[in-house]
Amino acid sequence: MRKILIIGAGKSSSYLIKYLIDKSTTEQLHITIGDLNVENAKKLVGKHKNVSVIHLDVFNDESRTEAIKNSEIVISMLPARFHIEAAKDCITYKKHMVTASYVSEKMKALDDDAKANNLVFMNEIGVDPGIDHMSAMQVIDQIRDNGGKMILFESFTGGLVAPESDTNLWNYKFTWNPRNVVTAGQGGAAKFLQENQYKYIPYHRLFRRTEFLEVENYGRFEAYANRDSLKYQSVYGLDEVKTLYRGTMRRVGFSRAWNVFVQLGMTDDSYTIDDSENMSYRDFINSFLAYSPTDSVELKFRHALKIDQDDIIWEKFLELDIFSSKKMVKLKKATPAQILQQILMDKWTLSEDDKDMIVMYHKFGYEKNGQRHQIESTMVTLGEDQTYTAMAKTVGLPVAIAALAILNKKITTPGVQIPITKEVYQPILEELKDYDIKFSEKEVDYLGYNPLLM
Amino acid sequence: MRKILIIGAGKSSSYLIKYLIDKSTTEQLHITIGDLNVENAKKLVGKHKNVSVIHLDVFNDESRTEAIKNSEIVISMLPARFHIEAAKDCITYKKHMVTASYVSEKMKALDDDAKANNLVFMNEIGVDPGIDHMSAMQVIDQIRDNGGKMILFESFTGGLVAPESDTNLWNYKFTWNPRNVVTAGQGGAAKFLQENQYKYIPYHRLFRRTEFLEVENYGRFEAYANRDSLKYQSVYGLDEVKTLYRGTMRRVGFSRAWNVFVQLGMTDDSYTIDDSENMSYRDFINSFLAYSPTDSVELKFRHALKIDQDDIIWEKFLELDIFSSKKMVKLKKATPAQILQQILMDKWTLSEDDKDMIVMYHKFGYEKNGQRHQIESTMVTLGEDQTYTAMAKTVGLPVAIAALAILNKKITTPGVQIPITKEVYQPILEELKDYDIKFSEKEVDYLGYNPLLM
Repeated sequence: MRKILIIGAGKSSSYLIKYLIDKSTTEQLHITIGDLNVENAKKLVGKHKNVSVIHLDVFNDESRTEAIKNSEIVISMLPARFHIEAAKDCITYKKHMVTASYVSEKMKALDDDAKANNLVFMNEIGVDPGIDHMSAMQVIDQIRDNGGKMILFESFTGGLVAPESDTNLWNYKFTWNPRNVVTAGQGGAAKFLQENQYKYIPYHRLFRRTEFLEVENYGRFEAYANRDSLKYQSVYGLDEVKTLYRGTMRRVGFSRAWNVFVQLGMTDDSYTIDDSENMSYRDFINSFLAYSPTDSVELKFRHALKIDQDDIIWEKFLELDIFSSKKMVKLKKATPAQILQQILMDKWTLSEDDKDMIVMYHKFGYEKNGQRHQIESTMVTLGEDQTYTAMAKTVGLPVAIAALAILNKKITTPGVQIPITKEVYQPILEELKDYDIKFSEKEVDYLGYNPLLM
Repeated sequence: MRKILIIGAGKSSSYLIKYLIDKSTTEQLHITIGDLNVENAKKLVGKHKNVSVIHLDVFNDESRTEAIKNSEIVISMLPARFHIEAAKDCITYKKHMVTASYVSEKMKALDDDAKANNLVFMNEIGVDPGIDHMSAMQVIDQIRDNGGKMILFESFTGGLVAPESDTNLWNYKFTWNPRNVVTAGQGGAAKFLQENQYKYIPYHRLFRRTEFLEVENYGRFEAYANRDSLKYQSVYGLDEVKTLYRGTMRRVGFSRAWNVFVQLGMTDDSYTIDDSENMSYRDFINSFLAYSPTDSVELKFRHALKIDQDDIIWEKFLELDIFSSKKMVKLKKATPAQILQQILMDKWTLSEDDKDMIVMYHKFGYEKNGQRHQIESTMVTLGEDQTYTAMAKTVGLPVAIAALAILNKKITTPGVQIPITKEVYQPILEELKDYDIKFSEKEVDYLGYNPLLM
């Protein structure tokens, strides 16, 4: 039996574990799942002869090294900041490693050691980052192999609610860490490249400069810019490209309404509100509006944001009960962002039978024989239930497939890496099709400049 | 002769030095001026038997301690961060000290030592902070002495251009550090108290929530909120007050136009613009606007900010030449704020014969015998020329008067302090009247809530 250690049996591990269990007999795998919460992990796994669940605290050197020694490959599904101790052990005991996280500086520093020991340290092999890298590089390589020269690349991903569970006016529910959604886009101006011009968007304008995207059978979406669209420019070999843009997808109308929270300062996470504990939702809203002895919070809100009485976004705010004087914040010394998150979680939490959805959209512009061309590529994956979510599927399956491919020596190039080479993306994308994670591509007229990208 | 050491003969030292020289014979003063630039200092001082100019590098321990040992009182006119070494020497050699700067943590830490040695360490005794403290506390103390209870305090200061030199559409020129003007209000939400409610304004809304102020003979001004209006709440003894607001004054219309720069992200000082060196002003503006193969930068600018073709703010932008494709930024690796500062300095730098102006406006609300009352107090000071500016006058005279009062043992309470006690503000405000720095007070109907404070 080949031994696989999975550290962390959280929300995104369901498909990963199921995939490996399903293959465990034919592939002769023994899977050890280490988690702080053994009961939870056991519930997720069920009973299976090829699986053991152990208590594992990644900060306890003894239990961690013991578990790693006993495996051939280690998959860490913990948050990115918790990988490094396990990664160092993997060098020491010569084990391969797989994570879905961004490559940290500390992880990158292990590259020489990994290569010297002929170990594959595969990272960023979930959905975003992960499937985005692989699906983009596959098309980019095809274009180049056919003699094309890349001039434009735009890439968008959204973690959303599935159409059948899309029951609120915002067309949005939290399918991932709510905190990241509330503070999305903060920390500096968004930067991208369009027609060879660097463009900068300050946070407070981000949600007003969106782009529309049509996905067949799923209708229209919108996207706002990620903070650093240029992050993978060199990694993808796109240094000569004229347009480079990465964004986050929402249903149309979300950003215009969300912008109201940004404008009022309700997404700020840098200071705490006085006496937040004893505030009603209404008091919270009022603290961002001018004082008046006569005017209602509602009217001040409409006036400050110039919301006409028949504007459709008004209903979105009413739906969130933000003007309630009965609902209390209760949180002590909370930041505006923390309070807003609580208000949203009242309404945007998935119900037991809700399903989520992952949408991805790439645009590739290229020149060939003096002509300009454009390929657009889209992928939609729906979740099955609250355990087997689209998020868990698109994060966990690439991780699982990569781990098995490394064990089976189909992926052999050593070092700390991300999945941008044919050796890696080809077999993984191929197998993902069996699980209905597939991209549909179409040739369109080259647009380049997008008049909808404000 | 009593020996006074002035460290730093910069822009704000002209009146300070003149005052002390004028008093030097009757008061038996010898004034030593220490500066890195001896020539500059000599030019400012001229020749006078009671004055010496020496080369002084505040970071050279030997020359600094030597100069401090030889004096009875030390006035530091350096930027706040350079005071501390001199302050420590003042403790060691038992000298009084005066600065116009905010009390730093390091300065505050010397309080016990100053008291133990019976030394007066007077700080924040310029204009803002300085004259604002003194003029506010004088009225607050009067109200309390007469049995009134403070319920409202608002205070505003503006460093502006004098009406006779007010020659541009912004009604503004740089009379102080331009960098501080460009980045004013950044670093967190502005917070204030109104009718017992805490109010928060994010930076990107700051310049849209202004208040109008009328000053007799000088017309209408506007003010935007300072970041922390509550800073002196306890120091002034205003813990029970319902409304507390501190703001910065500009001529009406400045803030609405300035807000356009804020909205576009042009005041951001946190990142550098790519290839700023080779950009024209037009390129710089364009980097904050959406790409278009056909639309002009002007139209995109109007559209993004919703500026109608007949809006009067449009002329303000044209006046700054921001759409020029000939004027080049030239600065290497510059932040947006640095580039904007350069653009503004082309137009907003004072000419040789321009005069500046300091305006201060306080509102005091109080209850007495069940009735509510309000006092408003205003002060305007004009500069004489580019050396004897209103800024130098209002900063330097209180410093000079305080230093002499300490020497003459009229101010004796020891310790690190700011001018909020009668012992300090009474004689200084009285003497400032001789120099035409005086407040005019009037009783008005209590307003409390100000409908113009959006």
